[in-house]
Amino acid sequence: MRYEIVFSGSGGQGMILSGKITAEAAATYDKMHSTQTQSYGPESRGGMTEAYVIISDEPVDYPEITKADIIVALSQDGLDRQIRHIKDDTIIVVDEEFVNTAEVSKYKTFKAPFTNISREIMNSPISANMVALGMVTAISNNLSKEGMIETMKKNVPNGTEEKNVKAFEKGFELGSK
Amino acid sequence: MRYEIVFSGSGGQGMILSGKITAEAAATYDKMHSTQTQSYGPESRGGMTEAYVIISDEPVDYPEITKADIIVALSQDGLDRQIRHIKDDTIIVVDEEFVNTAEVSKYKTFKAPFTNISREIMNSPISANMVALGMVTAISNNLSKEGMIETMKKNVPNGTEEKNVKAFEKGFELGSK
Repeated sequence: MRYEIVFSGSGGQGMILSGKITAEAAATYDKMHSTQTQSYGPESRGGMTEAYVIISDEPVDYPEITKADIIVALSQDGLDRQIRHIKDDTIIVVDEEFVNTAEVSKYKTFKAPFTNISREIMNSPISANMVALGMVTAISNNLSKEGMIETMKKNVPNGTEEKNVKAFEKGFELGSK
Repeated sequence: MRYEIVFSGSGGQGMILSGKITAEAAATYDKMHSTQTQSYGPESRGGMTEAYVIISDEPVDYPEITKADIIVALSQDGLDRQIRHIKDDTIIVVDEEFVNTAEVSKYKTFKAPFTNISREIMNSPISANMVALGMVTAISNNLSKEGMIETMKKNVPNGTEEKNVKAFEKGFELGSK
């Protein structure tokens, strides 16, 4: 078993934290092996950020993504850059406010207004990634909800845990439909 | 140019944060391309943690480490696991309180009591990794001191910046000798 998830967006959208939480939860709570890789370019301030997570039932000896099982894109560029990692059964998860999915309409797609949901919950777009993480957890069969929530709570600033859990739960609910 | 740095230690020693800061600083301040990869095993609580950073003057298309230019080990296991990544001119950086370097005595080695230095500065071992980062910055010719410090300040908890800079500066001083 080898399961590949990509989080792709712009700087500041929390893609790296999303990757870290997912990889950590998979190993710590779900007893899998995992790797996460981030690439940075010289333009990284406000530029692209991508986190690649690989989950496996054995040690991951090749951390480069091949084809993604899930692609999460919080920006249009974020999706466009990942076209090369799409296979027939890739599931695409996007923030519908920012990403047009016309070009990938033949793939299974989940859309939600992650950023707006975050705004409603915390008066800030900052937890859009947590809404997306909740959705990814519901869609994937490889991540336990409890493990993701516990790992998330350890990785967000003190005092923001409760609202982040709320954001995650909303995404989970939307992904379960 | 391709420069590979490994941070290897136990859970809680901040190896992942060290990798993140290094990769981010290289891209944001030093205008390089970089990747960082972490592996997690099912035993990751208190178990091994390793962060692999690759810095390059062109996009990194192969994020797997081959042979390391610098190996930072904050635990004996951390060093032992990295033996396979040593080449003739690898520089080995260890916390001398925890790591015996007899087995790697033919390689260039820098030793310092990172954990003790952190204890002296912050009454806590928590910034041992920052002392090590300072030393790595002094040893490597590929990272600017200013970029590393600025990136570090953005990545440590609010209110701890000053002490972390002090820890970094101490490591930098020891690495400059």
